[in-house]
Amino acid sequence: MPFDFSPFFNRTLPGPSGKYGGFPTFNFVGGHNDPDGVPVDDLIAAATKTLQRDGRDLATYGMRSGPQGYLPFRKAIAGLLKDRAAMDITEDQVLVTSGSLQALDLVNEVLLERGDTVVIEAACYGGTMTRLARLGVNWVGVDLDAHGMRMDHLREVMDGLKAKGIKPKYIYTIPTVQNPTGSILPEERRREMLEIAKAHDVPIFEDDCYADLIWEGGRPPAIQALDTEGRVIYCGSFSKSIAPALRLGYIVADWPVMSRLLAVKSDGGTGALEQMVMSEYAAKFHEHVDALNLRLRGKRDAIVEALAKEFGTTAEFTAPAGGIFVWVTLPEQIDTTHLAKIAGAEGVAINPGAEWVADPETGRHSLRLCFANPPIETIREGIAKLAEICHREYGVPVRGANTQR
Amino acid sequence: MPFDFSPFFNRTLPGPSGKYGGFPTFNFVGGHNDPDGVPVDDLIAAATKTLQRDGRDLATYGMRSGPQGYLPFRKAIAGLLKDRAAMDITEDQVLVTSGSLQALDLVNEVLLERGDTVVIEAACYGGTMTRLARLGVNWVGVDLDAHGMRMDHLREVMDGLKAKGIKPKYIYTIPTVQNPTGSILPEERRREMLEIAKAHDVPIFEDDCYADLIWEGGRPPAIQALDTEGRVIYCGSFSKSIAPALRLGYIVADWPVMSRLLAVKSDGGTGALEQMVMSEYAAKFHEHVDALNLRLRGKRDAIVEALAKEFGTTAEFTAPAGGIFVWVTLPEQIDTTHLAKIAGAEGVAINPGAEWVADPETGRHSLRLCFANPPIETIREGIAKLAEICHREYGVPVRGANTQR
Repeated sequence: MPFDFSPFFNRTLPGPSGKYGGFPTFNFVGGHNDPDGVPVDDLIAAATKTLQRDGRDLATYGMRSGPQGYLPFRKAIAGLLKDRAAMDITEDQVLVTSGSLQALDLVNEVLLERGDTVVIEAACYGGTMTRLARLGVNWVGVDLDAHGMRMDHLREVMDGLKAKGIKPKYIYTIPTVQNPTGSILPEERRREMLEIAKAHDVPIFEDDCYADLIWEGGRPPAIQALDTEGRVIYCGSFSKSIAPALRLGYIVADWPVMSRLLAVKSDGGTGALEQMVMSEYAAKFHEHVDALNLRLRGKRDAIVEALAKEFGTTAEFTAPAGGIFVWVTLPEQIDTTHLAKIAGAEGVAINPGAEWVADPETGRHSLRLCFANPPIETIREGIAKLAEICHREYGVPVRGANTQR
Repeated sequence: MPFDFSPFFNRTLPGPSGKYGGFPTFNFVGGHNDPDGVPVDDLIAAATKTLQRDGRDLATYGMRSGPQGYLPFRKAIAGLLKDRAAMDITEDQVLVTSGSLQALDLVNEVLLERGDTVVIEAACYGGTMTRLARLGVNWVGVDLDAHGMRMDHLREVMDGLKAKGIKPKYIYTIPTVQNPTGSILPEERRREMLEIAKAHDVPIFEDDCYADLIWEGGRPPAIQALDTEGRVIYCGSFSKSIAPALRLGYIVADWPVMSRLLAVKSDGGTGALEQMVMSEYAAKFHEHVDALNLRLRGKRDAIVEALAKEFGTTAEFTAPAGGIFVWVTLPEQIDTTHLAKIAGAEGVAINPGAEWVADPETGRHSLRLCFANPPIETIREGIAKLAEICHREYGVPVRGANTQR
């Protein structure tokens, strides 16, 4: 008779996980990237060089660099953010984290209490909302248009909260390659967001984890770069630009916040080998990302063409100028939570929209499709299969691939 | 005028961290290891081989192995635990964590609620108690002797709790190279602990993170290996046996607990490169640990000799049969929290006993000295300096290095 742990579990736990069943045949979920885009040989060279130089330092927690992370890596991050996001920072403002998910957790732990309110985008990274829900924190969504968060609606939301006597703990935004809509917030709106935040005396939490992946138009300066008051806490990641299985993210913050983040980062440091390798590889970062973006653009083209071909006018979407996902809205008769179940059972994994919006009702007919991981031929087959399933279950699309179904 | 974050902080935060000031000259704190013990060349070879084979898989979260960790690494861990701790487990029972600190956090998150009680050893890893305090969990200490936790006192503690209507959530133990006392719990006591846990119907949480570092006497079977009911949640680490800056620990648990651990491990996985490298390096693990233990035994000898020489009978301690620290008790007039401050200011870092015991009062005259990191000459100088400071501040030791002070 095995020991029964169930009476011992924390009563606020989420439900148990299911067993891992392997990758679905047509995998349009998760922030996976293109296996052909991993710079394997260069990573081997970087690992060899950095271990030869500093391998002995692995014997000490923090690699003699302190709890903020390996010093050469923090310097490399500061340099990349200067080049790519116009951020004028030093390594002392950088905290290396185990992916940007830990960045979210640490910032939330420092700022949030049960019952607090935060402002987010009306369509938003699902993992952010899962975290907020687990912390007992309320959120209010700000509407998006093709250029990201609408500043008129942000004003309205902030005024509305103020009228209720609620001061949000932060405005959370993914301004550059917004998740899930893929929009890029123009510089004017970034400045406007800072003004609104100032008028309401609240911080901004800028999550820029997809910002390196842009192939059309430039990358605007980070909101952090436009901020003259230190109001912005910034986080980023190498998960999307190098490889998600390397758990390397970072937070940029000034000492008053940094000292609090450090006090709750009780993990003994982020993996040093990955930091060492990436600090060595950083010199090739720009070149690598250019090549990766070409590759991702090709896949974006493939999925957009497949959607047009298979779904025709049934699927509404904007072809994203960067990133790894496209946000699609289907006709009203299609509930994507239901569709995700049916399609999942047939090997087509999609993110139902309800999990990626501030108000689940508004995402009922939408879905997020990630396109970086599957080969182009698999993308085409998967979208065709998804259209077939939609046709079979909901009667639309009526025509696909130029033939009546 | 910089933005003031202070009104926004979570009110239950610990105080801010201080700025990192570099390594102290005589560093007797922290789980650092010997830089000469890091197998740098073998790690380079392992990194090269594993990246050549599986580097492309870095493009996917979880390396196509699911959320429990890289499959070859989990298999390697299961194999090592069979060889070294007599544990009969499979890779399905292994969850790779970012160091054993994350293992503590995950197990605590799954089992503990504010107001709960747990049973620990009367002298205990400081980080365990810091975590419990932050979670609002109470602890009761069980007395130790030269062989670890005293089973007569465990019975007494459990009966006492029962009389008060309190059922502890787990018995936490570091049975093998106990932290900070260095003792190794004999197999009979391990079996007795299982019986007591059974009689009181409570789980055991076995923290074996130092267990590979034994140079005198054998390593007893893990408590997990003696458990026939699945009552034990086990954790371990490669931090002490390979390198602390590699953040690689693991939990061994059956599916009812594993499924709950997975549901709260929302970090996107533990760093894959470190898992890959260690899975490749695992074949050399036994040989490496044998060599490392010889090295550590040499340092243990050095610190024990230095303590005898400089402190004479003023310092009470048992030379540990493994691990990286020695637990020293000084005369009553010496408050080690005070000593730690004075010595710290003069470049000698020590762990004051009050932070490493269940009841701070019982540790007032004790201290933990970690000896793995400093070179042998530095150990000697540091202990001499510590004795000088004690003599100057407290009048003892009166004699040191065979001369009157």
